[in-house]
Amino acid sequence: MTPSRGRLITFEGGEGAGKSTQIARLAAGLRASGLSVVETREPGGTAGAEEIRRLLVTGDAGRWDAATELLLICAARRDHVRRLIAPALAAGTWVLCDRFADSTLAYQGIAGGLGAAAIASANAVATDGLAPDLTLVLDIDPLAGLARAHQGGGEETRFETFDTGFHAAVRQAFLDIAQAEPQRCVVVDAAQPADVVAAVIAASVRHHLGSA
Amino acid sequence: MTPSRGRLITFEGGEGAGKSTQIARLAAGLRASGLSVVETREPGGTAGAEEIRRLLVTGDAGRWDAATELLLICAARRDHVRRLIAPALAAGTWVLCDRFADSTLAYQGIAGGLGAAAIASANAVATDGLAPDLTLVLDIDPLAGLARAHQGGGEETRFETFDTGFHAAVRQAFLDIAQAEPQRCVVVDAAQPADVVAAVIAASVRHHLGSA
Repeated sequence: MTPSRGRLITFEGGEGAGKSTQIARLAAGLRASGLSVVETREPGGTAGAEEIRRLLVTGDAGRWDAATELLLICAARRDHVRRLIAPALAAGTWVLCDRFADSTLAYQGIAGGLGAAAIASANAVATDGLAPDLTLVLDIDPLAGLARAHQGGGEETRFETFDTGFHAAVRQAFLDIAQAEPQRCVVVDAAQPADVVAAVIAASVRHHLGSA
Repeated sequence: MTPSRGRLITFEGGEGAGKSTQIARLAAGLRASGLSVVETREPGGTAGAEEIRRLLVTGDAGRWDAATELLLICAARRDHVRRLIAPALAAGTWVLCDRFADSTLAYQGIAGGLGAAAIASANAVATDGLAPDLTLVLDIDPLAGLARAHQGGGEETRFETFDTGFHAAVRQAFLDIAQAEPQRCVVVDAAQPADVVAAVIAASVRHHLGSA
């Protein structure tokens, strides 16, 4: 018997919006309802893509320009899609992904100034047409988010060192993407307590995908 | 006084065609005539691009598919163009580059099956419209070239392990590119002795670019 196709749910939003926490909570809920779930992230998610991620997230803010980032991120996405996401979906597994193509449009396309057309053609090579079934945009004031992200520590600070105007442009870009595709995207106020955010997300998944 | 713009000369062809030898010889000749010359290569040529190169040229043949290679190579090209090639040309330096955008069309686009359109859009992001002033296609039978390349030893063997049909397709793609753009491209029979190849190249540079 061929399993029914899984679902791809992507989590988008700025630094410190709580994406990884919420992915873990949704994954637990979906597993409790009997689904097979994989949690992953971009850039990264496979051995090759994680090697590319290391180039992207370490070093000075000026190490790569937006065009170089676009191409590196899409290279990582290609490896991730073909080796992990597409096979998992085909096997009936639900895939929860921390960032996907919308982040590329928001960071490199809008805030980075490359424009939507360059992003669309690179994403097309990377995804081969695969789109999320549901995208949860965790919206938070960039300053509050960055303060939260810095509490976590760690060495992956390159994008955090971009200026506040950049992060404000990223936030607005995510809101614009969600407004343009309301069937696919749900905006969640991520400044609320984590339990509230988790409940909103669970309800959105039930409403849009009929599960969890 | 603003210096006159330099020239970008790219060397294309399969493994073992003698590109690096011929680049060194042409560079010596151009320097003897008083020009400022930089020798470089792709993927690579800058610190960031060389890091990307390491991902590309090591490991199993199946490590990346052609689409991932395309995006990684174009990311490296972007860094190379903006940090080295474009500034050098603006300063009046002649740039001799071992492989450039034509290799991406031949390897990933034609032999790798991605097609010309995907290559063109990724190259456009990478080069921002910069094209070579002259491209020298060093043509050699793939088996003879690979035998020569293996004599050199080294660890950068990933592309050499692709099958012979792949390398034959690469060779034909370079010949087709040269035929389509005769003003920019010169095909040189690289099976000839190195001194003969060097003389043909020097004459081509004089003829096309009025120097050396």
